[in-house]
Amino acid sequence: MVNKLCIIGVGLIGGSIAKAARVANPQLTIIGFGRALDEANLIQAKALGVIDDYTLDITVAVTGVDMVVLAIPVGAYVQVLQLLQPHWSNTACYTDAGSTKSSVVAACEQIFGAVPSNFILAHPIAGAEQSGVGAAKADLFIQKRVILTPLADSHATAVQHVQQFWQSVGADIALMSTEQHDAVLAATSHLPHLLAFTLVDLLGHKDEQAAIFRYAAGGFKDFTRIASSDPTMWRDICLANQQHILPLLAELQVKLAQLQQHLMAAEGAALLASFAYAKEARARFLAQFER
Amino acid sequence: MVNKLCIIGVGLIGGSIAKAARVANPQLTIIGFGRALDEANLIQAKALGVIDDYTLDITVAVTGVDMVVLAIPVGAYVQVLQLLQPHWSNTACYTDAGSTKSSVVAACEQIFGAVPSNFILAHPIAGAEQSGVGAAKADLFIQKRVILTPLADSHATAVQHVQQFWQSVGADIALMSTEQHDAVLAATSHLPHLLAFTLVDLLGHKDEQAAIFRYAAGGFKDFTRIASSDPTMWRDICLANQQHILPLLAELQVKLAQLQQHLMAAEGAALLASFAYAKEARARFLAQFER
Repeated sequence: MVNKLCIIGVGLIGGSIAKAARVANPQLTIIGFGRALDEANLIQAKALGVIDDYTLDITVAVTGVDMVVLAIPVGAYVQVLQLLQPHWSNTACYTDAGSTKSSVVAACEQIFGAVPSNFILAHPIAGAEQSGVGAAKADLFIQKRVILTPLADSHATAVQHVQQFWQSVGADIALMSTEQHDAVLAATSHLPHLLAFTLVDLLGHKDEQAAIFRYAAGGFKDFTRIASSDPTMWRDICLANQQHILPLLAELQVKLAQLQQHLMAAEGAALLASFAYAKEARARFLAQFER
Repeated sequence: MVNKLCIIGVGLIGGSIAKAARVANPQLTIIGFGRALDEANLIQAKALGVIDDYTLDITVAVTGVDMVVLAIPVGAYVQVLQLLQPHWSNTACYTDAGSTKSSVVAACEQIFGAVPSNFILAHPIAGAEQSGVGAAKADLFIQKRVILTPLADSHATAVQHVQQFWQSVGADIALMSTEQHDAVLAATSHLPHLLAFTLVDLLGHKDEQAAIFRYAAGGFKDFTRIASSDPTMWRDICLANQQHILPLLAELQVKLAQLQQHLMAAEGAALLASFAYAKEARARFLAQFER
């Protein structure tokens, strides 16, 4: 049972974790930590009651804490771990919420030589296009998957505590390797985001010339929703996981070239086969999603 | 004012037009027409009260009718127009709901030599992944755009009547050329559908090997919604509008190749610029959409 929780980075994800953890345990003390330039955000988080207090001093932040959650952009790990390193607690457990995991392992190796055995990497498969603590929701993780990627030398008790913590905020736990995590997420999340951004980038320029967006409908709205995601966050995710994204992008381009061939040759049967397979595959996805 | 309406093809769109037209004018008589193999569907449409009656005889279907709506798949026009041609009424107005317009012009030219002056082509920018009369909704066209593509020799009164008819079911009218229509829809609808089908085709095969879909979230669900659309309908749309889709697909592939370059070279600034532009462009789209 967590009694004192430290959230590093009190944005949408960090704030939602804080809110959910408080619902699970009203006695919980929650302290927020951030950089001096985040102070306005931390003040807002305290005013909203998302955290009990905040500090800009890392020694204060981790004192007497039994769980530390890093809810920071993928690109900020080296800097934050550098800050945490001299004050790393052996009595607390650490977890995070980063969208890529090999990059976190690499950042730990750079700062600690290896991932500390009480730092259990996690990725909640939940989010929204909005950002900031104002958008935080206590139910963000309810029945959402959280992938834990414990390592061979992770401390078993730490794995157990971190797992229980994520379960306490409502999540369903899945365990996998960092490698598998990054490959799966490249397919189901990173590639779709890149496609949405690229399509809207292309069509946005056409819209500037010919106002095409006014003839777009609900399908387009849903298809492009993820193109409203935070550009900086997605730049960092892409750079952190390029090794898994690049081969998928190449595969997609092969598929698109095939599609182009089928279209050019008016091969209706081939088009139908691809579309029908996709429709079936999505039905399979929906069946899992709604389980 | 329409007193007797004939709907050719009483599916999602035809059924929704019938329902909406009846709301607008409760005195309206609505007759459905279809092929012998559609009879079960027509029986259902009558049982649901969507149409007053149905017939499989085209001479009966158009007798005394003042508006005929073709709500048929893009691939079925030649066959249906062939059926309609010997009984073409000069006192009725004709309109349609096809997703591509140059292909309808071509079908008319094949059967009539030219588009009849009382046939005013239309495309309601509304729909759903579902199909069939059971999914028909009276409010499907409320505040949705309907694009009319009248031709130089379209009869002015017919244009006016067809425009009023679409307005009576709740639509906002936009006028453009068939060419412009097909170019705009290739960008805002056809290309996104092709991308969604192609991505889900690719990922579906990966899911069969490694169950990746169970780690996909809400963003993926929205992004792929249009991949649940009717495969036959979309095969026909692609074939009917390949001339406008192919150049866009080529442009997208150039963009994706650039993205690949940026990723490979870890050019964060270029990625950020593209993502940020897309986010802004989508905000512009949403502002129009919600107007």
